[in-house]
Amino acid sequence: MIVVLRESADATDRDRVRALLESRGASFRPLEAGGRGLFVLEGEVSADLSRTLATLPGVDGVLPLRQGFVLASRRYHPEGTVVEAGPARIGGPSLVLAAGPCAVEDREGLEAAAEAVRKAGGSLLRGGSFKPRTSPYAFQGLGEEGLRIHRETADRFGLAMVSEVLDRADLPLVSSYADVLQVGSRNMQNFPLLKALGKVSRPVILKRGLAATREEFLLAAEYILEAGNPRVILCERGVRSFDPSLRNSLDLGSVVLLKEMTHLPVLVDPSHASGDRRLVVPLARAAVAAGADGLLVEVHPHPERALSDGPQALLPADLMALSRDLEVLAPVAGRTFRRAP
Amino acid sequence: MIVVLRESADATDRDRVRALLESRGASFRPLEAGGRGLFVLEGEVSADLSRTLATLPGVDGVLPLRQGFVLASRRYHPEGTVVEAGPARIGGPSLVLAAGPCAVEDREGLEAAAEAVRKAGGSLLRGGSFKPRTSPYAFQGLGEEGLRIHRETADRFGLAMVSEVLDRADLPLVSSYADVLQVGSRNMQNFPLLKALGKVSRPVILKRGLAATREEFLLAAEYILEAGNPRVILCERGVRSFDPSLRNSLDLGSVVLLKEMTHLPVLVDPSHASGDRRLVVPLARAAVAAGADGLLVEVHPHPERALSDGPQALLPADLMALSRDLEVLAPVAGRTFRRAP
Amino acid sequence: MIVVLRESADATDRDRVRALLESRGASFRPLEAGGRGLFVLEGEVSADLSRTLATLPGVDGVLPLRQGFVLASRRYHPEGTVVEAGPARIGGPSLVLAAGPCAVEDREGLEAAAEAVRKAGGSLLRGGSFKPRTSPYAFQGLGEEGLRIHRETADRFGLAMVSEVLDRADLPLVSSYADVLQVGSRNMQNFPLLKALGKVSRPVILKRGLAATREEFLLAAEYILEAGNPRVILCERGVRSFDPSLRNSLDLGSVVLLKEMTHLPVLVDPSHASGDRRLVVPLARAAVAAGADGLLVEVHPHPERALSDGPQALLPADLMALSRDLEVLAPVAGRTFRRAP
Amino acid sequence: MIVVLRESADATDRDRVRALLESRGASFRPLEAGGRGLFVLEGEVSADLSRTLATLPGVDGVLPLRQGFVLASRRYHPEGTVVEAGPARIGGPSLVLAAGPCAVEDREGLEAAAEAVRKAGGSLLRGGSFKPRTSPYAFQGLGEEGLRIHRETADRFGLAMVSEVLDRADLPLVSSYADVLQVGSRNMQNFPLLKALGKVSRPVILKRGLAATREEFLLAAEYILEAGNPRVILCERGVRSFDPSLRNSLDLGSVVLLKEMTHLPVLVDPSHASGDRRLVVPLARAAVAAGADGLLVEVHPHPERALSDGPQALLPADLMALSRDLEVLAPVAGRTFRRAP
Repeated sequence: MIVVLRESADATDRDRVRALLESRGASFRPLEAGGRGLFVLEGEVSADLSRTLATLPGVDGVLPLRQGFVLASRRYHPEGTVVEAGPARIGGPSLVLAAGPCAVEDREGLEAAAEAVRKAGGSLLRGGSFKPRTSPYAFQGLGEEGLRIHRETADRFGLAMVSEVLDRADLPLVSSYADVLQVGSRNMQNFPLLKALGKVSRPVILKRGLAATREEFLLAAEYILEAGNPRVILCERGVRSFDPSLRNSLDLGSVVLLKEMTHLPVLVDPSHASGDRRLVVPLARAAVAAGADGLLVEVHPHPERALSDGPQALLPADLMALSRDLEVLAPVAGRTFRRAP
Repeated sequence: MIVVLRESADATDRDRVRALLESRGASFRPLEAGGRGLFVLEGEVSADLSRTLATLPGVDGVLPLRQGFVLASRRYHPEGTVVEAGPARIGGPSLVLAAGPCAVEDREGLEAAAEAVRKAGGSLLRGGSFKPRTSPYAFQGLGEEGLRIHRETADRFGLAMVSEVLDRADLPLVSSYADVLQVGSRNMQNFPLLKALGKVSRPVILKRGLAATREEFLLAAEYILEAGNPRVILCERGVRSFDPSLRNSLDLGSVVLLKEMTHLPVLVDPSHASGDRRLVVPLARAAVAAGADGLLVEVHPHPERALSDGPQALLPADLMALSRDLEVLAPVAGRTFRRAP
Repeated sequence: MIVVLRESADATDRDRVRALLESRGASFRPLEAGGRGLFVLEGEVSADLSRTLATLPGVDGVLPLRQGFVLASRRYHPEGTVVEAGPARIGGPSLVLAAGPCAVEDREGLEAAAEAVRKAGGSLLRGGSFKPRTSPYAFQGLGEEGLRIHRETADRFGLAMVSEVLDRADLPLVSSYADVLQVGSRNMQNFPLLKALGKVSRPVILKRGLAATREEFLLAAEYILEAGNPRVILCERGVRSFDPSLRNSLDLGSVVLLKEMTHLPVLVDPSHASGDRRLVVPLARAAVAAGADGLLVEVHPHPERALSDGPQALLPADLMALSRDLEVLAPVAGRTFRRAP
Repeated sequence: MIVVLRESADATDRDRVRALLESRGASFRPLEAGGRGLFVLEGEVSADLSRTLATLPGVDGVLPLRQGFVLASRRYHPEGTVVEAGPARIGGPSLVLAAGPCAVEDREGLEAAAEAVRKAGGSLLRGGSFKPRTSPYAFQGLGEEGLRIHRETADRFGLAMVSEVLDRADLPLVSSYADVLQVGSRNMQNFPLLKALGKVSRPVILKRGLAATREEFLLAAEYILEAGNPRVILCERGVRSFDPSLRNSLDLGSVVLLKEMTHLPVLVDPSHASGDRRLVVPLARAAVAAGADGLLVEVHPHPERALSDGPQALLPADLMALSRDLEVLAPVAGRTFRRAP
């Protein structure tokens, strides 16, 4: 259980809570986070004690441990958070478009993709140099060479660089190049990595795990927030379903619900959500119509030659068409979007 | 396995297939459906025989039995089907809006809902008089009294009447009142009901089962088509997911994929998909942006008093706001939509 | 909400509850079921009123409507129910073995299966004459001819006859032949069928729906119980999963949990649960080790010729081997099992 | 695609494959693994080329990349692998029992658990010192202090020590204490960790991810095998399901199928599979009846005081009762099991 104090709570309020907990033999630790005090108790307490705690002066509420996201909760942070990343303000009135190839493969290809991203009104260039691949025999990314190409291309086109980090040990390297760090769905509960990301001064895009509940997703974000990094961006990318005729199932109700539950921005990745190019543009439009703060899309100048996930990458012309749709759609969802002049 | 003949196949082609099957001792039955001949074999045959059959003159292809939807397949019916129902043309260039309360409860409430539907540009008035309820102790619908109120109200407001049928034995009664028959998700594989619906001269809205694959969904439609009723309308209404924080998960990729797989129209029901009023408008917008042919939405003048599913019903004012959004969104998806003048 | 009275509640207790409900304007209907009084309220009431009701003399408790299975609950019926069906006592100290082909196909095949069932210690002969098939082109069963063959074969071998009913309209026919009626997973929420089964003096085997929660499963049983038939037998048969490499996923934790939640007997069908003969015997053993009251297994003298579900049918010799395993396993689970002498 | 050579393939065979691939412009890399040659191609090739490759002398077969587990496959390694870990031979004729508390908390508790494990015939003492917890506010483990207590206790009771490793960076520390390294379900696709485990001379227990297919599970094992460590033990621990009334769903059909697909040993963890003490013994019995090579069970002398997962831990007396059941059950599954004398 977590006892959450009000921001206005003073030392007397705090001492009163502490004294009550001690008098009942509860084992707890005090914590300071998000500008307010917390008392974290291992396990739950009696309904009686819980009610008593909740009604003490200076106490905002008590939360069961499993649902205990506090820093990520909109309840304690009613205004939406805007995360700045290079030219982008994610979570603000403008829709954000992040695009690029699944993996950085070579300079020419990345430049062609970057040009398409810039023309389409995108502000972030995505592309992995460390790739999580289901099979050990599949292409695992170019490593530091990829990061270097990515950095130079992003700079050349005035885009922010988004790159995935797979492991706590790679974090210094990747964050020395990238503007935004991405955590893939398979790593959503890689807790040592999340804690380390809490110590880094870079925004983090956290993708929802394949079968993670919204609560688990927000608790994963809470790990990063609690360790000190407030710049977390959530990303829905499809969850596992029982029907193998689509790779994943994109849960757009989740976007609406997350925007109620948390103040953090929510992006949608329609490329991984479907794994099928024919679905990417319709799902991208749907995501924006449902209220997403932006999109994370794969684009590749020659999808048929891509070393990873070619069948889901848009062509540059598709991205441009999507961009035109976004201009029309954005106002329906109370947003704006502008292509490059 | 199913051997599908071309529409142009003649008696000689047919006899050749039959002779080959007989010479190999295969047990089969010939069938005439959708203007072409089929040979339906119990079980599968050798890869060799399958290849030989597929290359005979007059043969269009061979299909494994489990994926054997032929009449529902866009492969054999490339143009989209438009189903007429009262003033609506479902699957045509105009988006279709069907709305109304979950259950018909009384005349005043239904009239208030019908007025809202008409003003919002809707053309169908939904409302159940036979309700499938998870608990035997929950309200089960007004039965024939509800059908009568529903019919009179639909007529008064110039709307088509959509009503659910739960059982083959109720079919004569319900179809003597309703313009469009609805099959709920729990009945998607009620095969005697599906076969009986194939004999009725009414369009059928078939809702996807809670955990039905797209293939099973189309095979359920195939039951109705094969029994002789070509007017089938599919409806996505959310599937079961692992996260209890939302009642269902609306799979909009499925809408795009179904439009590729089948020529039948596809509606979306964002009310049952979410079970939560706050999500209905955003998901309705998303469904249209993804390419749905229309919406099936719950509206209730006093949701707090509804006997069934109140928490997911829109207020009339919400429906009107949605309607305005649809006018802007429709063109992005290549459609039109107009509110009542 | 449901207010559940104690069995010992008298007229005064009843009137007190009624008066309180009326004074608060609640709309309710009284019901007599399972030897006790219930008050069923549409919707929920305030927490205060709920607490007040729960503490009135003669009141056993109040239940939220969605979890409102009362007659199926072990809470109100602590002793396990034993359902008699021909020679079998399902839910008693002896494990029950029901076996036979998926579909009744011809007399010779069924007799060979029946002989295997009897030798293996089985007491029920299963086999469908009305088959629910995913595809309209697949074999749909022999209908009444199958029922006749089934009845005669069951009698000849001293076994009880288990046959599936697909539709309320077929119920008089099927129940004029069969000893035990089976409801398939696709019909678990066919409420008109469930209500009709409540009026029949035959035991009913109710299979869990493909994606039904345990609560929904027990509420489906409640429909039959509430309509007047106390002889309901539950059957776990695998649920839908995200991994297509097995047809279903057999949830044996569910068997243990159901035995806690309800007094009704619980069988397991390892054949449909896996769809793969290699898995049937291991899963059958596992089901018994987990505490199932018995098994429902497919056996076919020539699985390669079966018109339905051949790949999952055991050979007679496999069934005999399973039977030997059951003799050893039964005591570990506190049961007995004996092969035919 | 992967071209798999026979063990008997010689240089001429190899050169023939290489020449064919080069003549068709395919990009590939040769690999030596598990005593045989592989050619790994990015992407797939034409059906024609695939068939040609499969029929070349010295070629055993071609595998699509996504299903490309070779070293884990029973096809290329028909005999079951036996992994030795201290006194245990996992995958051999004797069932293996690994037990202990979820987390190492203090010396007294661990000693009480260890004594129970030894008496019950267990050979491995489990217990985490680095705990993956859904919430950042939950107990995260004692770290190195826990490892030290665990090592000393395991030695004192003659048990092998099993400890979880969360992160590549912790691997040297954990493997300096533990006999067997455990990878939790959340880390099943932590590829840098898997690769690092391939370089360690310790057996690895790899738990199946919450929503991992069997194929993904075996590909995760393939990462460890391919990197050089042949001692991988799989562990089924329940997968995510749609019914929140149980924490997970234990998929025992998966145990049978995995034993067909792979030569690696398969354990079952009934504690995490259910999260509910009442289910642990029945599911443990079921797992053995289904053919598991052993069990991984939580036991705690005072579950009500446990800092992690108390509600699912067995008491020492429960473990002893389970142990007696295993002696009876083991022979049914073709195994042996003996309690300590």
